[in-house]
Amino acid sequence: MINVMIREVGLRDGLQMLPTVMTTADKLDWIFSEFACGVTEFEASSFVSAKLVPQLSDAAEVCAHAVKMSGLTVSALAPNLKGAEFGIAAGVDKINFVISVSEEHNQANVRRSVEQSVLEFARVAELLKATKGHRPRLVAGLATSFGCTISGRVLESNVRKLAISLVKLGADELIIADTVGYADPASIRSVFTSLRADFGEAIPIAAHLHDTRGLGLANALAALEGGVRAFDSSLGGLGGCPNSPGATGNVPTEDLVFMCESMGLRTGIDLPRLLQVRSKLKHQLPDAPFAGSIARAGLPKGWDRASH
Amino acid sequence: MINVMIREVGLRDGLQMLPTVMTTADKLDWIFSEFACGVTEFEASSFVSAKLVPQLSDAAEVCAHAVKMSGLTVSALAPNLKGAEFGIAAGVDKINFVISVSEEHNQANVRRSVEQSVLEFARVAELLKATKGHRPRLVAGLATSFGCTISGRVLESNVRKLAISLVKLGADELIIADTVGYADPASIRSVFTSLRADFGEAIPIAAHLHDTRGLGLANALAALEGGVRAFDSSLGGLGGCPNSPGATGNVPTEDLVFMCESMGLRTGIDLPRLLQVRSKLKHQLPDAPFAGSIARAGLPKGWDRASH
Repeated sequence: MINVMIREVGLRDGLQMLPTVMTTADKLDWIFSEFACGVTEFEASSFVSAKLVPQLSDAAEVCAHAVKMSGLTVSALAPNLKGAEFGIAAGVDKINFVISVSEEHNQANVRRSVEQSVLEFARVAELLKATKGHRPRLVAGLATSFGCTISGRVLESNVRKLAISLVKLGADELIIADTVGYADPASIRSVFTSLRADFGEAIPIAAHLHDTRGLGLANALAALEGGVRAFDSSLGGLGGCPNSPGATGNVPTEDLVFMCESMGLRTGIDLPRLLQVRSKLKHQLPDAPFAGSIARAGLPKGWDRASH
Repeated sequence: MINVMIREVGLRDGLQMLPTVMTTADKLDWIFSEFACGVTEFEASSFVSAKLVPQLSDAAEVCAHAVKMSGLTVSALAPNLKGAEFGIAAGVDKINFVISVSEEHNQANVRRSVEQSVLEFARVAELLKATKGHRPRLVAGLATSFGCTISGRVLESNVRKLAISLVKLGADELIIADTVGYADPASIRSVFTSLRADFGEAIPIAAHLHDTRGLGLANALAALEGGVRAFDSSLGGLGGCPNSPGATGNVPTEDLVFMCESMGLRTGIDLPRLLQVRSKLKHQLPDAPFAGSIARAGLPKGWDRASH
């Protein structure tokens, strides 16, 4: 029985920031090693221009291999219709189409107005409806839902309006993202409670939180208390946003697992084994800025013997 | 109107760990600079053996100067009757007598059984009752309330039993400490809710949290939700416990202020100014392991213009 679903996004959100390019073999090794710990969903890559993000130029190959693993859910980010087409061709389980709530951030990120991105989302939804055979689920990722490094404050009403539009157009799931670490426990609770009221149980809603200002786990706790049961995180806290200076650092997967399991919430993830995968990854990416506390301090004495 | 009372403990919990000894003048400068930001209570020092903790050998002088500042509450740690006598002589406002709930930790920390420490606490309570003139409040600090690096798990029932004994003997306030970073949001909520049930509003109860395993602020959030309105923290997260390996790191004062104020809870503390004091302190203590996120990432855009 799983209480909290944790999705690993380091292969996309983490690797896109690094100066080095990880080999396809190493990426697949990361996915399969972490899958063996009990992590069953991965944002495996992003179908963006290989010129803009050379780190993820092997998206098709990574996804095509990962989808062969039974029990593993593979999602891929797509910023536009072309990316979604590639994702469908690679056989992914979910297409994660990202739009920023902040107009300025969306322009910086995909060089489109929010309205233009919504129109593009509608085209992706149409494409999926027309897709024969394996049809990925359509996930709407709402970036900068809690604030923006360019425009500052983001109104909750704008998050709700955009979410409602995207669900009407065909989103099967939502990911609400604090892309730049501007959220606090009060705003987290408010936004997720409102969205839950808007959609009930019909639409799964996940939280994608960054730890930029130290509130990552406190915000995750507030989200848990607000009923959120699906989270994005990144092994070693790798990640950030290329268009958001200082926004480095997803919530570390291992720290999120530690918090949930310590509280008695089951993630289905073997934490000691996950820490071994993190160690291996650190050797493979010696220049990457690894974060996280539990890997540094170690598990509390007796933690393994408790009912985790 | 203050919603959350934050007490600075870096001068005791932080400085006792450092290889360097800060001058008395610099300590007083720290206190007065941070007081000017709105921090009104300090654990200014500890009346321990100067041989064991040479960093705090000027406790009497620091306290005697600090108590002259109107509006500033000065507390000092005392591990025994002798320490309490020195504290009274220095004119402190509060004596913080620390006992570990864990037998093994208390032995390591003060070379006494818990029972012996309770007897010593009773002597301090008697001394205070007999004190003419200025009489400090007696605070009982319960160390390792959520676990111990030596003995592992600590039972909530033992925390409650010890707290009840100490209040019966004359404790005016309680500080419940996660000395080694073993707490999680669920255990925090459970312990503080139980203690609130035991004591009602009669006894102020503060939380002293370490950030060893990354849960510091999440635990503070859980404590806030459990009704706790007084916290210990340390500028730059300085601190730890000499008898608890790996236990470094109080919750950073600046990050705790950031979280509370972001949520609309008033601390009375000017955060931009506090960050300046932190910068100065960092120059004065170049070898100290400063932690904290908000000083690194900066305040969110527009945060100052909001109602903080």
